[in-house]
Amino acid sequence: MIERLAIIGVGLIGGSLARALRAAGAVGEIVGCGRSLGNLERALELGVVDRITQNPAEAVREADMVFLAVPLGAMRGALAAMRDSLRPEAIVTDGGSVKCSVVEDARAVFGRVPPRLVPGHPIAGTEHSGVEASFAELYRDRRVILTPLAETDPEAVARVTAMWQTCGAEVTAMSVAHHDEVLAATSHLPHMLAFGLVDSLARMRENDEIFRYAAGGFRDFTRIASSNPVMWRDICLANREALSAMLARFGVEMTDLAESIRRSDGEHLLEIFARAKAARDRYVDQARPVHEDADRSSSQT
Amino acid sequence: MIERLAIIGVGLIGGSLARALRAAGAVGEIVGCGRSLGNLERALELGVVDRITQNPAEAVREADMVFLAVPLGAMRGALAAMRDSLRPEAIVTDGGSVKCSVVEDARAVFGRVPPRLVPGHPIAGTEHSGVEASFAELYRDRRVILTPLAETDPEAVARVTAMWQTCGAEVTAMSVAHHDEVLAATSHLPHMLAFGLVDSLARMRENDEIFRYAAGGFRDFTRIASSNPVMWRDICLANREALSAMLARFGVEMTDLAESIRRSDGEHLLEIFARAKAARDRYVDQARPVHEDADRSSSQT
Repeated sequence: MIERLAIIGVGLIGGSLARALRAAGAVGEIVGCGRSLGNLERALELGVVDRITQNPAEAVREADMVFLAVPLGAMRGALAAMRDSLRPEAIVTDGGSVKCSVVEDARAVFGRVPPRLVPGHPIAGTEHSGVEASFAELYRDRRVILTPLAETDPEAVARVTAMWQTCGAEVTAMSVAHHDEVLAATSHLPHMLAFGLVDSLARMRENDEIFRYAAGGFRDFTRIASSNPVMWRDICLANREALSAMLARFGVEMTDLAESIRRSDGEHLLEIFARAKAARDRYVDQARPVHEDADRSSSQT
Repeated sequence: MIERLAIIGVGLIGGSLARALRAAGAVGEIVGCGRSLGNLERALELGVVDRITQNPAEAVREADMVFLAVPLGAMRGALAAMRDSLRPEAIVTDGGSVKCSVVEDARAVFGRVPPRLVPGHPIAGTEHSGVEASFAELYRDRRVILTPLAETDPEAVARVTAMWQTCGAEVTAMSVAHHDEVLAATSHLPHMLAFGLVDSLARMRENDEIFRYAAGGFRDFTRIASSNPVMWRDICLANREALSAMLARFGVEMTDLAESIRRSDGEHLLEIFARAKAARDRYVDQARPVHEDADRSSSQT
C-alpha cells in the first residue's frame, strides 16, 4: 500500500499509473505535479489525482513513493527540484525509456545514485499523450523493466515491483546497459527507420503523389513516425551509444541487402527474407499479450 | 461485360478479382488456371471459378479478358505458354507489382508489346495468400495503376479501366518508369527496411530476449516482414534499378541521422523528426480510404 504517491508528469504514463493504482485500491492520496496547469487541472477534474502543484519540491514533501514520468530531457531538473524535499524513506522510480541517462542525472544531482532510487521503464504507451489519454489498463500484461544498481536498496526494488504488479504488469530486472541495448534494438532503431523513411520521402519533389499511392502496409510501417519529436530527440541524445551501435549494425545489414539487389543475387535475398519472416512469425506467436490484431491489416506490394 | 475471363494464378489477387466481377454480375464464365491443383480445386469448390485447368494455353483459348496474377518471376513463362492460344481480340492485363519487368517479359515473348496488353497493378493485398484469402471487396476504394505504352490500344485500356471500376477501384494511369519509382518508394523500400531490421535483430546473439521485449509498435512496424519471401525476391530483382536508387537515397538520410546522433545534434534531430511527423500526419489525414484504424495501435518507447 502506498500512502502518498507523487507523480511528476501527469501524462499518459503517469496518469495511467495513478488510475491503475487507484482502481486497485493500492494508494492513499495522489499528488500530481507538472508544468502545464491546464493538464493538471484536467487530471484533477478526471479524478486521476487528488491534489495538484507545479512545484516538485511541494509534490514530494510527504510522499512515500515518487514516480517521475517527465521527458528524459527534464529528468535532471525534476530530480534537482525535489532533492531537498524528499523524505529519507521515500522511494523514487521513473518511467524513462533510457536508463543510463537517468542514472547519470541522479549522480549529477545527488552526488551518487540514492539507494532508494529504482530506475524503471514500463514497456507500454500509445501515440496519444496527456492525461486525457491515460487509462487504468495501460500496463496490464505489459512488461516493466527495472534496472537496480549494486547500491540500490532491495526493499525499494521489492516495493516498486509490487506497485507495477498491482497494475497487472510483468516485472523483470536487468542491468542499465543491457536495458538500453535491448530498447535501442526493439524500439529506438525502428523509430529512427520510420522517421528516416517518412522524412526521405517527404523531401522528394513528388512527395504528395508518393504519399497518395502509399497503401495500408505503409500506414502501419510508418505509424511510429507520428510519435512526439521532442521525446524522440531526448531518447536519441540519452541513448546515443547503444543506438549508434544499432544504427551501424543495421547499416551493415542494409548494405548487404542493397548489394545483393544490385548484383541480382536472388538466392541471398531469399535467404534474408526467409530468415526475417521466420523470426517475425515466431515472435508474433510468442508475443504476450497476443493481441487479436496480431496479424490484422494489410501489406501491399 | 466480360464473356469469358481467364485468371492465371487464382490466389488472393486473382481470386478477389473473380469474386468482385461475379458479385457485380459483370462476367460470364471464369476459367481458373494455376500450378497448384489443390488450390484450383478449392477455387472451384468455393465457386470463385467455373472451370479449372493447369494449362495456360487451354485457359485463354476462348477468353476475351485474361488476368495474369502470377509472381513476377513466373510472368514470362505464363505469357509464353498462352502466346499461341490467345484470340486476336483478347485483352491481357496483369497485377504485377513491378511494371518494367512485365513489359520486358512481353517484348521477349511476343517480339513487341502487344497492343491489347495493358500492364496494371492493383494497390491492394493482405499478408494472406491463396484463394481461401480472396474476397470480393479487396479492391473497393483501392487504387489501380495502369501503365499503358504508346502502342497500347486505347479501347483495351478503357475495358480494363471499366473492369477495375466495376470492382470499386479508383483507376489511374502513369508511365511504367514512374509507377516503378513510386512503388519502390512507398512499398518496396519499406519492405526492405522491415526485412532488414528483423533479420539484423534475428542474427544478434540474444535475439530471443530482444524479441521478447519488443512491444506493439514493433509488431506494427515489422508486420510486412511476414510477407512472402519468394514474391519479394522477385520484386527486388524486377525493380532493381528504382529500388537501388531508393535504398541509396534512404542510406544518405540514415547516415545524416546517425551522424546527428553521434554528435548529439538535438536541433537537427528535432528538425528531421518534426518534418517526418508532419508528413506522416498529413498523409494519414489525406489517406483514402480512411480506415477507422488509421491511428489506432501503439508506439512504445
